[in-house]
Amino acid sequence: MKTIIKDGTLITASETFRADILIDGEKIALIGNELTRNGNERVINARNKFVFPGGIDVHTHFDLPMFGTVSSDDHYTGHKAAAFGGTTTVIDFVPHEVSSLRANIDNWHAKADVKAAIDFGFHMNITQWDTQIAEQIPALEQEGITSLKVFSAYNRRMRLQDGEIFQVMRIAKRCGFLTMLHAENGDVIDILVAEAQASGHLTPEWHALTRPAWGAVEAVLRGIALAAQAQAPLYIVHMNAAGEVDQLQYALERNLPVMGETCPQYLFFTIDDLRRNDGSKWVCSPPVRSEEDNQRLWKGLKDEVIQVFSTDHCPFFFDGNKPIIYEGKSVAIPGKELGQGDFTKIPNGMPGVGDRMVILWSFGVKTGRINPNQFVALTSTNPAKIFGLYPRKGTLMPGSDADIVIWDPEMHVKYGVSLSQHRTDYNLYEGWNLIGFPEMVFLRGNVIVDRQQWYGREGMGTYLCRKPFTPFS
Amino acid sequence: MKTIIKDGTLITASETFRADILIDGEKIALIGNELTRNGNERVINARNKFVFPGGIDVHTHFDLPMFGTVSSDDHYTGHKAAAFGGTTTVIDFVPHEVSSLRANIDNWHAKADVKAAIDFGFHMNITQWDTQIAEQIPALEQEGITSLKVFSAYNRRMRLQDGEIFQVMRIAKRCGFLTMLHAENGDVIDILVAEAQASGHLTPEWHALTRPAWGAVEAVLRGIALAAQAQAPLYIVHMNAAGEVDQLQYALERNLPVMGETCPQYLFFTIDDLRRNDGSKWVCSPPVRSEEDNQRLWKGLKDEVIQVFSTDHCPFFFDGNKPIIYEGKSVAIPGKELGQGDFTKIPNGMPGVGDRMVILWSFGVKTGRINPNQFVALTSTNPAKIFGLYPRKGTLMPGSDADIVIWDPEMHVKYGVSLSQHRTDYNLYEGWNLIGFPEMVFLRGNVIVDRQQWYGREGMGTYLCRKPFTPFS
Amino acid sequence: MKTIIKDGTLITASETFRADILIDGEKIALIGNELTRNGNERVINARNKFVFPGGIDVHTHFDLPMFGTVSSDDHYTGHKAAAFGGTTTVIDFVPHEVSSLRANIDNWHAKADVKAAIDFGFHMNITQWDTQIAEQIPALEQEGITSLKVFSAYNRRMRLQDGEIFQVMRIAKRCGFLTMLHAENGDVIDILVAEAQASGHLTPEWHALTRPAWGAVEAVLRGIALAAQAQAPLYIVHMNAAGEVDQLQYALERNLPVMGETCPQYLFFTIDDLRRNDGSKWVCSPPVRSEEDNQRLWKGLKDEVIQVFSTDHCPFFFDGNKPIIYEGKSVAIPGKELGQGDFTKIPNGMPGVGDRMVILWSFGVKTGRINPNQFVALTSTNPAKIFGLYPRKGTLMPGSDADIVIWDPEMHVKYGVSLSQHRTDYNLYEGWNLIGFPEMVFLRGNVIVDRQQWYGREGMGTYLCRKPFTPFS
Amino acid sequence: MKTIIKDGTLITASETFRADILIDGEKIALIGNELTRNGNERVINARNKFVFPGGIDVHTHFDLPMFGTVSSDDHYTGHKAAAFGGTTTVIDFVPHEVSSLRANIDNWHAKADVKAAIDFGFHMNITQWDTQIAEQIPALEQEGITSLKVFSAYNRRMRLQDGEIFQVMRIAKRCGFLTMLHAENGDVIDILVAEAQASGHLTPEWHALTRPAWGAVEAVLRGIALAAQAQAPLYIVHMNAAGEVDQLQYALERNLPVMGETCPQYLFFTIDDLRRNDGSKWVCSPPVRSEEDNQRLWKGLKDEVIQVFSTDHCPFFFDGNKPIIYEGKSVAIPGKELGQGDFTKIPNGMPGVGDRMVILWSFGVKTGRINPNQFVALTSTNPAKIFGLYPRKGTLMPGSDADIVIWDPEMHVKYGVSLSQHRTDYNLYEGWNLIGFPEMVFLRGNVIVDRQQWYGREGMGTYLCRKPFTPFS
Repeated sequence: MKTIIKDGTLITASETFRADILIDGEKIALIGNELTRNGNERVINARNKFVFPGGIDVHTHFDLPMFGTVSSDDHYTGHKAAAFGGTTTVIDFVPHEVSSLRANIDNWHAKADVKAAIDFGFHMNITQWDTQIAEQIPALEQEGITSLKVFSAYNRRMRLQDGEIFQVMRIAKRCGFLTMLHAENGDVIDILVAEAQASGHLTPEWHALTRPAWGAVEAVLRGIALAAQAQAPLYIVHMNAAGEVDQLQYALERNLPVMGETCPQYLFFTIDDLRRNDGSKWVCSPPVRSEEDNQRLWKGLKDEVIQVFSTDHCPFFFDGNKPIIYEGKSVAIPGKELGQGDFTKIPNGMPGVGDRMVILWSFGVKTGRINPNQFVALTSTNPAKIFGLYPRKGTLMPGSDADIVIWDPEMHVKYGVSLSQHRTDYNLYEGWNLIGFPEMVFLRGNVIVDRQQWYGREGMGTYLCRKPFTPFS
Repeated sequence: MKTIIKDGTLITASETFRADILIDGEKIALIGNELTRNGNERVINARNKFVFPGGIDVHTHFDLPMFGTVSSDDHYTGHKAAAFGGTTTVIDFVPHEVSSLRANIDNWHAKADVKAAIDFGFHMNITQWDTQIAEQIPALEQEGITSLKVFSAYNRRMRLQDGEIFQVMRIAKRCGFLTMLHAENGDVIDILVAEAQASGHLTPEWHALTRPAWGAVEAVLRGIALAAQAQAPLYIVHMNAAGEVDQLQYALERNLPVMGETCPQYLFFTIDDLRRNDGSKWVCSPPVRSEEDNQRLWKGLKDEVIQVFSTDHCPFFFDGNKPIIYEGKSVAIPGKELGQGDFTKIPNGMPGVGDRMVILWSFGVKTGRINPNQFVALTSTNPAKIFGLYPRKGTLMPGSDADIVIWDPEMHVKYGVSLSQHRTDYNLYEGWNLIGFPEMVFLRGNVIVDRQQWYGREGMGTYLCRKPFTPFS
Repeated sequence: MKTIIKDGTLITASETFRADILIDGEKIALIGNELTRNGNERVINARNKFVFPGGIDVHTHFDLPMFGTVSSDDHYTGHKAAAFGGTTTVIDFVPHEVSSLRANIDNWHAKADVKAAIDFGFHMNITQWDTQIAEQIPALEQEGITSLKVFSAYNRRMRLQDGEIFQVMRIAKRCGFLTMLHAENGDVIDILVAEAQASGHLTPEWHALTRPAWGAVEAVLRGIALAAQAQAPLYIVHMNAAGEVDQLQYALERNLPVMGETCPQYLFFTIDDLRRNDGSKWVCSPPVRSEEDNQRLWKGLKDEVIQVFSTDHCPFFFDGNKPIIYEGKSVAIPGKELGQGDFTKIPNGMPGVGDRMVILWSFGVKTGRINPNQFVALTSTNPAKIFGLYPRKGTLMPGSDADIVIWDPEMHVKYGVSLSQHRTDYNLYEGWNLIGFPEMVFLRGNVIVDRQQWYGREGMGTYLCRKPFTPFS
Repeated sequence: MKTIIKDGTLITASETFRADILIDGEKIALIGNELTRNGNERVINARNKFVFPGGIDVHTHFDLPMFGTVSSDDHYTGHKAAAFGGTTTVIDFVPHEVSSLRANIDNWHAKADVKAAIDFGFHMNITQWDTQIAEQIPALEQEGITSLKVFSAYNRRMRLQDGEIFQVMRIAKRCGFLTMLHAENGDVIDILVAEAQASGHLTPEWHALTRPAWGAVEAVLRGIALAAQAQAPLYIVHMNAAGEVDQLQYALERNLPVMGETCPQYLFFTIDDLRRNDGSKWVCSPPVRSEEDNQRLWKGLKDEVIQVFSTDHCPFFFDGNKPIIYEGKSVAIPGKELGQGDFTKIPNGMPGVGDRMVILWSFGVKTGRINPNQFVALTSTNPAKIFGLYPRKGTLMPGSDADIVIWDPEMHVKYGVSLSQHRTDYNLYEGWNLIGFPEMVFLRGNVIVDRQQWYGREGMGTYLCRKPFTPFS
């Protein structure tokens, strides 16, 4: 089966040019000038459209147990929402529940493999530490996992001590793996949360007030320092505070191999949103902060201090008592209402995997904050390069998987829960006017989205074995 | 006539991937995976080679009259040297000798068109100013010229006053042209030169001592300020001082549309070279400065504060009394010896158009200072984008001119005048060991260089009409 | 005649301590713990008061002809206003009207000496340039003048070319003089003003729009570069734009001997004030700019990037047709109304000499932006050190002139034209609530202000011969 | 008993002026112009001499048990050495050996009070943490202790966890105390030390290699962040790495109340000194680092990013087997030789209390890096202000203690163990040529040093109750 995409404007991380693409099976076979049908190729007219490599969201949490419930998108519904937003690859985090890393991974495969509708990989959380765990890390390469996530917060649940993180980084260095850091100061958070509870400060805004930005800022530099001492690369997840960007830039100016991502929620929202009646919708960790932080993060994207735009997608129902209709069936999953009256019980997270590209296009590219090449770099090429998927993913070159988005830059939509396909009852961008939207999405040569039609299916997604990290600059 | 370049590793400003290229006539027609001969295509094996877009040197001075002599490369010999170094496009500056811009351009075409061996464009110098000149500027677009060079030095010869530069920029803004600035402080230079002469300080090092870096630094910010006030883009030519990079970065952080280039000589040489017995070889304007300046410029390239790597190629014989053999004939052109005993009479300039890419590869990429994608961005893609040649030039995409370099990353050479093809008697990098060298060079589909064989010829180069400037970031 | 000031809290640029001061004649004789009367000393109780060295305003323009009128404070009324605000020394600028510097100075002495009510010095403007002028500069030291002011704006009136400024700086360096720079870009201003006039843009806001901040910013770096090349110190007058502070800081980080001042108007007002009905009150050059500029200047004061707080006092009546009563007499002097309908004819300048210290105390010290020692440094000690008056002026040490302010930190006043003593009909801070005000002011041991009583008189002020510049850090 | 110091040049943190000082008993009574004997005052001629306030070294460790020995200066010999170097006040750290803070303090008083030869105060180490300890902190004010030192290194010995440090800071904030931080990353150090030992890397240079600078840098920002979150002031002890200065500056630019000190060893020495045969002499924690770090620290002093110059004086014999003669008696105390063959057993520390001022004068002031006023600020005024001793100490004002140094700026000495008075067998500056040296030193009006004569005695020093911290800027 072959397909020709005719007359589109192809955008890569550096190039913008008119060309046709020939897809042969799962791969891009040719990029050429005047590709013509010489058999039974399907021909798709992309005139006046942009053609992007499929998006890659390297930070998702599907079907994740939390606070007695579970994130409301599973590996099927989340993948489907991703696809509608132009994303064809996701990387999900394997929780470190039992000591055997392999057992944790098997468990996650059991949940994901049968449901996967787009391609996917796994990061491995390392949230316990001892010699046995250390010894299991090198074998992760055989599992196709080359990135490890550690936490400097969530004491007594997921946090590793500095010395443990340092040891993870040194093993990662030896194996060619990349260490990812959730950067907050767990000690201070615990003290402030306990005080807030004791004082009856239980509204959602206290979620932010008990996790101050300075804790995130110092934890970023701490991670950088540990990595520098381990001579290992480092990737900061969900950057959210101005000072984090400052510190990442400080490290880059000193030629350290450090990288970072931010997520849509940190560009638009602030503690004021947590103060709304429905503030629990904005409860995520780290928290949304201030307008000044929003602006510094935008600048970080533009200046390429931040290389990746991901989501930390981890949705919950705002009101898990009220079912919604999803694929024709009524669904209700306990959600934010669990924390009614106590912010510490609000499930942490929000939808985003489907919003990511459409929001960045309208508010990043259309506003002139970034250019279309940077859009592709942030949403696809850089994630692929950093996480060992390039050039199979992340570009439009021959030999690459035919993961392709045909993007209509002139489509106007009023966005929100009716257009986003997340399995939840709210969307952060409800009613926002967007210009530019995916028209067709290909996964390895197959059309999975065509306008609002879904052609994907459970099990269609392939697990991606990722290569070791190579220096990125 | 078709050619297939097989199995090379293609490098663009963002991508690195294995693919084949089909050249059809003058254009790249296809990029594909397994392109096979289905006719009489010539097939070239590029296995284990890199494939780059042909280099673009946007700053050359061929056949330029100066100090009673002329730069020793004309539009043929200079083009040929460029080609041997992997460069397939040059942009030369049209001197503003007579008031009619058109007459100056015609004069330059008369010199260049018949000789051109690679593709070329022109920048227009604006070194006189009155209403009539102002009125002629918009028509330059019809001449294919969309960039204007002004000088804040060379009082009473080429300098415009600040208000005149400001007016040039505003007209440029209206026309979509880009203003290029030679940034030095002419007033101070004149005073210092007169004093040096009066004091009998006449050795080549006084060339540098009479043109202090601070004058260049302030002139960069002055240009930036004038451009900011004119709301016009600005391009700083031949950046040479650490403080210039600082100031360009200062402007970029404030989101101004400013850009800059540096040249090989400013990365490696210092005033100490001017103090050598053969110091006149290093006399160029602005002068080479200090080790600290070298390092800051390297960092500027890496951080993308500087977007373009050009040469300011303007060679002279070190000893114009001693002929060399060029294409079998004896040639001698008066050169640096004219300034024997008086630095003010040493013709300003040095060879470089052929050295540019091989030097940057060995000392930029092989040392890890920049990566191969940045190499392509600096030597080809960015120049094409900034100077209105993209995507015809500057990339390897279908529809682009088939200007292609097959680069052998493992070739070891001892570089110098015997390998560089400049028509002069010295090379700045004499005896330097390089790794990585062009193997074949295509100009619009034609092989013009194959190892040390030259297949180009006079008149083969095409004059390039350039498009207006579009914002570059 | 002796005086003891008892029990005050003395504040110097670094110290804060309880002590008594014995004034003997014109000098501070003793600072001690328990000074007691042992003769007929006058004893003044300063308990709960601060005791400062008398303020020094190094930037005033008294009795200055402009646009067919004259600044409305002469060397008596301006001195009196200064004294009421805590200032006991001013330095005024001698216009360079005729070629002979001595003749200009004599002329200014003729106006000032008989009227002076506080101590005063002169700076010499250098606004014409030729060999004869250059040769007269060294002799200024005999006139007690060791600072020269040059302008990079006011083409064809006061501007010197860069090379001329460079020559002034080199002579200054040789003589131990300090060069002061009015930093704007005259070329651009002239073009913009002509355009505004041609377009009928004649309201006061166009005064600001035709003098863009970027011109001031680059002119600061230009001045710095000229000074660096001349190896001479530099002082930037009336800093007004954020970028000016950035550039001064850039130079300080490179260990250059550069300094700067700002004035009250640049901390509080913006182009929006020029848009008011009475906007002409805020017309001064350089213009007031933006809130962001205000904030950066405050930060420059706090961080000691800016060392001096002066005024550029040059008042005009808002409505010179309506007389005011001054010392019992009706006075009217043509003023801002001259530019009714044409901003280019509005006399440039505003009152300030009396406002300076009370405004800085209330909005700098009381708000915590600076501390009381910095207040003294900015208003008195640094000006004295930089302009060759220290330790005669600028401190409270034995041997210094007994120029002393007893400051009541708890006095609340509603400020404005009724309290300020300028001879004009408006005050920029009309109706502002201030806390902290001078209670008594001594000039060389004599009480000249006691609450709202004036004991000064014409001719009481002494002309100060200033010493050469010594490095200040 | 009264003394007049005649005709000296008094230097304070901001002033430089000729004046006489009258000392009456323990206090400065008068500063005046022409103080004359009118009784039996002793008159000391200070013509051509500088007069400074007595030095304050806020970081000493006298008689400190370590590694089975004890620092070789006790509270007498160390005080005496301090005095000979111009220092009249020291603040020593009380180890937190037993849970009762009062018991620790009593123990330290028992050692210090009878021996003290100059004035002294105590800081309290907090190196254990529980509710009982927390509750004892406020009462330290009654002990005259208003500063607490915490460590982020020395796991399982002195380190507090981040949350504990945060709690200390919050209590400190409530009490008006200042928290001092030893900033290193204990976790990484422990891992690296264990590895070095396991690998047989036991030479002194491994002391530095196992305590990398990045650990210090991040710990500084961590401390800043904890303090920012506690809204408390912070003081970083013994700053030693370039990045620490960068981070302190980052915090100052954000208006946080942070301060820091550096010590002489960090300005001059590097890991290369540890590689010498007698490298153990340079073993201190944090370690000496690189030339680049030295330079950044000098710049930090000049720019006032670092406010205090102290010593971390903690001397040991280089060879404790070879006695020296001290005050006529043979003394030998086990020292650096304990770590022969194993860097982990080398007592950490070096002499410095006597070197501090003479070294800073010769290499700071005489070289032009800082000016004499900054010298006074760094060595006396700032320490007094920051640690609650001002204006009793740290200045030359009436009412202050008559702690005075008469400094001969022209005295040339070849420095070393023969001139420094530390009770140890080596000096880091052995054989260095110094210009400028104390001539006489007064402690509360008493001459304790006159040239090389010692007039002090055990028990003469007074314990200083210090006031709470007040904001310093």
